[in-house]
Amino acid sequence: MVSEKMYGLGTKKSTIRTIFEFGRKRAAEIGEDNVYDFSIGNPNVPAPAAINKAICDVLQEMDSCAVHGYTVAPGDPVAREAIAKSINRRFGMNFSSKNLFMTSGAAAAITICFKALNEGDDEFIAFAPYFPEYGCFVDSVGGKLVVVPANTSDFQIQFDEFEKLISPKTKAVIVNSPNNPSGVVYSEKTIQRLAAILESKEKEYGHPIFIISDEPYRELVYGGIDVPYLPKYYKNTLVCYSWSKSLSLPGERIGYIAVPDEVTDFGCVYGAIAGAARILTHVNASSLFQRVVARCTDVPSDIAAYEENGNILYNGLVEAGFSCLKPQGAFYLFPKALEDDDYAFCEKAKKYDLLLVPGSDFGCPGYFRAAYCIKKETIERSLSAFKKLAEEYNK
Amino acid sequence: MVSEKMYGLGTKKSTIRTIFEFGRKRAAEIGEDNVYDFSIGNPNVPAPAAINKAICDVLQEMDSCAVHGYTVAPGDPVAREAIAKSINRRFGMNFSSKNLFMTSGAAAAITICFKALNEGDDEFIAFAPYFPEYGCFVDSVGGKLVVVPANTSDFQIQFDEFEKLISPKTKAVIVNSPNNPSGVVYSEKTIQRLAAILESKEKEYGHPIFIISDEPYRELVYGGIDVPYLPKYYKNTLVCYSWSKSLSLPGERIGYIAVPDEVTDFGCVYGAIAGAARILTHVNASSLFQRVVARCTDVPSDIAAYEENGNILYNGLVEAGFSCLKPQGAFYLFPKALEDDDYAFCEKAKKYDLLLVPGSDFGCPGYFRAAYCIKKETIERSLSAFKKLAEEYNK
Repeated sequence: MVSEKMYGLGTKKSTIRTIFEFGRKRAAEIGEDNVYDFSIGNPNVPAPAAINKAICDVLQEMDSCAVHGYTVAPGDPVAREAIAKSINRRFGMNFSSKNLFMTSGAAAAITICFKALNEGDDEFIAFAPYFPEYGCFVDSVGGKLVVVPANTSDFQIQFDEFEKLISPKTKAVIVNSPNNPSGVVYSEKTIQRLAAILESKEKEYGHPIFIISDEPYRELVYGGIDVPYLPKYYKNTLVCYSWSKSLSLPGERIGYIAVPDEVTDFGCVYGAIAGAARILTHVNASSLFQRVVARCTDVPSDIAAYEENGNILYNGLVEAGFSCLKPQGAFYLFPKALEDDDYAFCEKAKKYDLLLVPGSDFGCPGYFRAAYCIKKETIERSLSAFKKLAEEYNK
Repeated sequence: MVSEKMYGLGTKKSTIRTIFEFGRKRAAEIGEDNVYDFSIGNPNVPAPAAINKAICDVLQEMDSCAVHGYTVAPGDPVAREAIAKSINRRFGMNFSSKNLFMTSGAAAAITICFKALNEGDDEFIAFAPYFPEYGCFVDSVGGKLVVVPANTSDFQIQFDEFEKLISPKTKAVIVNSPNNPSGVVYSEKTIQRLAAILESKEKEYGHPIFIISDEPYRELVYGGIDVPYLPKYYKNTLVCYSWSKSLSLPGERIGYIAVPDEVTDFGCVYGAIAGAARILTHVNASSLFQRVVARCTDVPSDIAAYEENGNILYNGLVEAGFSCLKPQGAFYLFPKALEDDDYAFCEKAKKYDLLLVPGSDFGCPGYFRAAYCIKKETIERSLSAFKKLAEEYNK
């Protein structure tokens, strides 16, 4: 009577959602403060004050029909121009409004790219560990997700495996740096090597291979780490950006796709993006929030709380005997589980009211994700629970 | 290199868009005031003052992470409950939050329904004249749009043709009343007859047939005409609503799907809707605007300007010799063209700087659409142009 596939997608709970709901139930039993819920990547830092000010200013300064009316499908040209200029200032690009297509957040942006590019059963490559929704989105446009196994030494790219998996059917490669779930930033060396391989494969196959750079965590980096701007290293790059994390606006669904002039057959790619946005029924990104983010392009992300949280959790985990990379970006740590079976490990952690997500969910068994976008006090109190959990394994 | 279909959808201009762009060019030549642009259905009445007040109140009263954070996919339960209560007050329903699924406007709402319901090559029936984007949306989910020819006597439904076209493959029937482009409201008699036929066909075929009620124009009705609330007449009705027109918020993309308890296998339908919204990447409808519309459920639509415009245009057209139904709802008139070829007619109209959309675009040749959501003065000045156009045909 209905599409079985849609029913499955709408009712099958993700592991993360199941853990989160367990946490809510447990909180009702033992109190909010006694549950250490590291399951959800939802910003807990308020939006900068500049956001609400910009909303009020736009409402005061602009005519109602202009603020709340349809914009053209790619987005208000004035807003796009302002955002392009900010990108140019930061990354030395030469964008103008025509290089940007405003979207309802990054999920829409990447899926619009998948839909625009997929010609049939094209392959899209993701590097484990990766955001599990990629599989669902690629499948929905009729493409195939190919996963390169994780390089667990430093969570950069495992290039040997990548070169085995790239094929004439590869339409695009998804890069997500700073990475969810590893918290790692791909180094310039990684990006240069990736670009070199792709350029050589483009020549070999005689058609473009795109990088889809999924960048919602670009601004959330710690210790002055540089996040290479991919269009500077590889011409066929589509940048998918979102203000969800940088300005704590995930519910407002506002982001963009940047299509550099250098992309092979720019008009063709931009046109297909417009078509994909249309039939995914993204008529236009929120007309109010297009104007708001355009006024807030230079508002810095409030990363101090995340950085402090990341350090407290990292130091506590290392002290408890966990093996883990230092936090570089996003708001996740991705430590090694204390047994090979990460599901079993996360089940055991629950006994200590530690809610963690198994790495298998991100295509990387034997690890777990801890989202540290939660209260500092909760993290501090959780450390003794992590210690007890580790002691159980050391018995 | 890209999907040809997406490229076509993103670059092929619609007739309406082409006419609109001609109008912009012409306005640059002869001045804005001398172009009578009836091409676009874009509200020209500002949003009620209550909207901007509600935005400011929400920002002041609510915590930033709550206002701008993700809501659950179906939408904030408190907002849904408030909207459900307002529907109950107005239409005597018994909805609660669980009956509503918030969407990014009506285009998303109807396409989510198509995608949720389509099991393969299901058929979706539309009644001409109809909104041309239906064809694109149904096609995008892999279904087939079947069009019942227009009943040009009164633009109610041509039931003989409908009964010929309904088949075991019919999954749903799209009802759009008040109608774009005819401006007609389906009478209670029409709805009752439609419901009776569908009920009998459901029995005959042994499976549900849904009504997808596309209702962005529900509040825009004139002369006290009643718009029947379809779930009261037919149980398998999904109501797709939007505040785009009623509160002049088309750019904010905010609406809902209502799924009554009585729908066959409620959980199955609601679950499939959630799945379809997910893979169309509508993560959640704007979190701010969910709260804003929930506070404005009882704010009346400002229809006075539209009503006045409709009457001026209607009287002027009749006086000039056009045959046309009185405006009932929405902001469109759909008069008979003065020759059979509505494309040729609209081309001739352009000589008088009258920008009209051919009825063929809506599956109804021999007619044209005039959108009267424009300045009253423009309509008043256009009347002599309509007269001259008619005189050309009377020579």
